[in-house]
Amino acid sequence: MKNFTSVHDVSNLQQLVQEGLHLKQNPYAYKQLGENKTIALVFLNPSLRTRMSTQKAALNLGMNVMVLNMDKEGWALELQDGAIMNHTSVEHVKEAAAVLGQYADIIGIRSFPGLKNRDEDYSEAVFNKFVKYCGVPVVSLESATRHPLQSLADLITIEELKTRPRPKVVLTWAPHVKALPQAVPNSFAEWMCQADVDFVITHPKGYELAEEFTKGTTITYNQDEALADADFVYVKNWSAYEPYGKVLPGNEEWMLTLEKLKAGNQTKVMHCLPVRRNVELSDEILDSDSSVVIHEAGNRVWAAQAVLKQMLESL
Amino acid sequence: MKNFTSVHDVSNLQQLVQEGLHLKQNPYAYKQLGENKTIALVFLNPSLRTRMSTQKAALNLGMNVMVLNMDKEGWALELQDGAIMNHTSVEHVKEAAAVLGQYADIIGIRSFPGLKNRDEDYSEAVFNKFVKYCGVPVVSLESATRHPLQSLADLITIEELKTRPRPKVVLTWAPHVKALPQAVPNSFAEWMCQADVDFVITHPKGYELAEEFTKGTTITYNQDEALADADFVYVKNWSAYEPYGKVLPGNEEWMLTLEKLKAGNQTKVMHCLPVRRNVELSDEILDSDSSVVIHEAGNRVWAAQAVLKQMLESL
Amino acid sequence: MKNFTSVHDVSNLQQLVQEGLHLKQNPYAYKQLGENKTIALVFLNPSLRTRMSTQKAALNLGMNVMVLNMDKEGWALELQDGAIMNHTSVEHVKEAAAVLGQYADIIGIRSFPGLKNRDEDYSEAVFNKFVKYCGVPVVSLESATRHPLQSLADLITIEELKTRPRPKVVLTWAPHVKALPQAVPNSFAEWMCQADVDFVITHPKGYELAEEFTKGTTITYNQDEALADADFVYVKNWSAYEPYGKVLPGNEEWMLTLEKLKAGNQTKVMHCLPVRRNVELSDEILDSDSSVVIHEAGNRVWAAQAVLKQMLESL
Repeated sequence: MKNFTSVHDVSNLQQLVQEGLHLKQNPYAYKQLGENKTIALVFLNPSLRTRMSTQKAALNLGMNVMVLNMDKEGWALELQDGAIMNHTSVEHVKEAAAVLGQYADIIGIRSFPGLKNRDEDYSEAVFNKFVKYCGVPVVSLESATRHPLQSLADLITIEELKTRPRPKVVLTWAPHVKALPQAVPNSFAEWMCQADVDFVITHPKGYELAEEFTKGTTITYNQDEALADADFVYVKNWSAYEPYGKVLPGNEEWMLTLEKLKAGNQTKVMHCLPVRRNVELSDEILDSDSSVVIHEAGNRVWAAQAVLKQMLESL
Repeated sequence: MKNFTSVHDVSNLQQLVQEGLHLKQNPYAYKQLGENKTIALVFLNPSLRTRMSTQKAALNLGMNVMVLNMDKEGWALELQDGAIMNHTSVEHVKEAAAVLGQYADIIGIRSFPGLKNRDEDYSEAVFNKFVKYCGVPVVSLESATRHPLQSLADLITIEELKTRPRPKVVLTWAPHVKALPQAVPNSFAEWMCQADVDFVITHPKGYELAEEFTKGTTITYNQDEALADADFVYVKNWSAYEPYGKVLPGNEEWMLTLEKLKAGNQTKVMHCLPVRRNVELSDEILDSDSSVVIHEAGNRVWAAQAVLKQMLESL
Repeated sequence: MKNFTSVHDVSNLQQLVQEGLHLKQNPYAYKQLGENKTIALVFLNPSLRTRMSTQKAALNLGMNVMVLNMDKEGWALELQDGAIMNHTSVEHVKEAAAVLGQYADIIGIRSFPGLKNRDEDYSEAVFNKFVKYCGVPVVSLESATRHPLQSLADLITIEELKTRPRPKVVLTWAPHVKALPQAVPNSFAEWMCQADVDFVITHPKGYELAEEFTKGTTITYNQDEALADADFVYVKNWSAYEPYGKVLPGNEEWMLTLEKLKAGNQTKVMHCLPVRRNVELSDEILDSDSSVVIHEAGNRVWAAQAVLKQMLESL
């Protein structure tokens, strides 16, 4: 695997999931592989799980890790081609990316969307410039429209915990107080569409995701109907795709509660975290055995390690 | 040792001190012990000595180290159980702690008191939630009411530099411009009460520490009397316990000067640092041979390494 | 080499350059040298290239690396001797430096000039206090008046890419929107004066550098004349030395363009980065084969590694 920016970079999905599960049992079996290899983790935005789990994965593989909080330890980047840089941005992404590529064998980048300009966000303007100019393999630590390391961890979790060969997986929209990116639901949908699961998306009217991520999937506005017989319920807020980046009024009743989980504690509740308790998901769910969110977060290590292992093998 | 949050976690104080002194002579003798073990150092507040010395200690033991500035690289944590998280806090400590526990074998946490609500601070509300929810051993990098890695380094320093079997150790209050926590003096008192020293506390009226930390200790308002024949003088400011977190007017004359050190340069002056020069302690002391503050700061490495070694041995 | 703060710390310049080129071919040949040695990289100011390349260099040598963003992860330092510290600075550089020296075998420090008080900046007030009080070898990560790791990387680049034994090297002033330090041009001039090159400086009237760095060098206000037959053109903005730290009006025409490079793509264009595109240097140059700025930034690793190797050998 050269880059890891979406499910489309994965040649064999099932094999990658099995690699993750294998590494979970044998975390240090490939410490020679990363010897004298350096990964630079570049954050244009805050991060907890991604920051820590990717570091851990790289260390498990024997890699050197360098972390850069570009915004806080460095400076503002210019993204426009042809800009006359006489304002506040200090360095063009062309140089910043190319220079980082001189110091690392693999670069991880996190770059959130602005949620103002859909075309810019959905063209992955910032992220793709890094990929283009850095000259080394890139692993996405979440981009404007996708979060593939999260999705792989999600799929590993489903594979690990499923109790029937083709589980029913439901992605349900949840309320939030802020306008959030569509990256996690886009990515989750994109991965589930390629996985051996029965996948359903449910959300209020107006929260339709971009078609490129959900093509062929069952989508319903009836949350109750969607949740029936679900093996896994993936709870996540996102802002509207149209009007772009907006929070539509109402829909507080979409918060997931234990009562809504008809199948009782047979249903596993997932969330990428951080989660707003009692807004997206009730305390009673998060504190119950139905919740697998911590287990899922733990699997971020094995997802990242499986990806980095395949990237190291391609260097 | 499972957790290290106070002197009460130490089964054999003298042995732990000797372990520290042994490691000072043999820093790399236990590099195998930490192989493939990861410590996450989580800072909710700024840190210099604790940050660097604990990293060094962990590296000496062959551990992997991941540092997280929770406030700057992550986001605000919710601490209240049952909160409806529709305001500014992004993640509940329940999730944040549990997730970090997925990525580390040992977690170090620094969490200062708010100095507004004594019950909250003295119940170690934040710190104890981390301990409760992270699911792995925790080492305190300073909590609301204690700083045990500092106290152990202090005791190692006293053991190393003492010139008689049972030295006289004086904790003296010093002026400051800000309201500071009671964590360092609480902790120092608690450790000295268990050590083989003649311990005296002196401070202005109104700066009484909580009794649980000082029970049985000689406490006097007469600084001169306390300083007489002292082998070690530990200088430290703290805010009042009652009224909680307040700075009482006056008391500038409590600054320690060379003139006050009757025993001359036989007395060793200690301070946990950072120190406000010419407010807490005069330049003439800090720049003289009486000061052992740098030596003491250096011993932070061996204190942390002794603790981490015992924690690794219990994993 | 004990400290590395300027070209004057280098006993044999040509040998150090060759060491860098040798390490570029054999990055991991000296991994034993840094075993159990720790470098602390202390940043009082932002950094990208220096931060990442010095980490990489240290890791290549098998060292442990600890990074401290003093301003963000620590607190404000007091620099004045004798200060009564009852204001905002939390710790005196005397203590901060001495304590860091307890935790590291080598310390790297970055400290920019204030550009207000020339005497203070040119006496390297902050930097020299760190050197004086930390008690261990210091490598400059850029100080108020010099950036020797950059200059060494520049010289390595020239040595690597030159097409005749004694190339012509031109340092040309470039416009900028901010008042920048003189550290990079001072340092570059100082190193070129000792290298086997034909060195010329060109800048608008009023931008004369301090004589101590340029003594004996050809200096001209005629950029065209200077650029003629240049093998390497080093583009850099700096603020005036007199009146100190000021940007003089005009001089926008000093931006380097492809048209000005009479020798065509035979001339190599250098810049320490970050560069303001279309202010200091035109897009057409930076995006052409004339530019070697990324290659030059890559050489920062080998410069730092050569320096750290010699410092480790002197420990």
